[in-house]
Amino acid sequence: MIVNVMEEVVEEVLKRYQTQLKLCCECQHCTTDVKALALNDLKPKYVTNPDHSVYVRAVLEGDPQEVTKLLSVVTRAASKVSSNPRCDSDFTQKTS
Amino acid sequence: MIVNVMEEVVEEVLKRYQTQLKLCCECQHCTTDVKALALNDLKPKYVTNPDHSVYVRAVLEGDPQEVTKLLSVVTRAASKVSSNPRCDSDFTQKTS
Repeated sequence: MIVNVMEEVVEEVLKRYQTQLKLCCECQHCTTDVKALALNDLKPKYVTNPDHSVYVRAVLEGDPQEVTKLLSVVTRAASKVSSNPRCDSDFTQKTS
Repeated sequence: MIVNVMEEVVEEVLKRYQTQLKLCCECQHCTTDVKALALNDLKPKYVTNPDHSVYVRAVLEGDPQEVTKLLSVVTRAASKVSSNPRCDSDFTQKTS
């Protein structure tokens, strides 16, 4: 079975920085859109053995440049989704 | 649910060009290694709705440049695995 470790990493960033990302909507639809957008902008890191993902993540999270890139990609994806959410939540009350 | 359409596309290429790729071993372990290596060299194409993968694949397969890149990436991954297979098949009979 192959796994793209970046999926877990982006999921973790979304959870850890949820408040700072200021998503206008945190529904499943919107967070999934942010994840897909971010992953399409990040180099994949597939492993054939899920046990190896811990190692790959450690290398990633230990590299300041990778972390900075990761945060900027996720932040950009979050603002794209926030400016144009595709879910059917009603934003009129929130913004007035 | 998010899906990287490239996973299906690489799987399809492996099946369609199995003979031309001349993998020294076609066991699950080796084909999975080829898939992971190839995917790590290809820009991901995540979709949030699996029904959209058909559309993304059509655009990909309709672009000669993408198809050429895809075939060269998979061929390179296949030759890397063939020159250094990690599975425990015994290659001594095959090569003597």
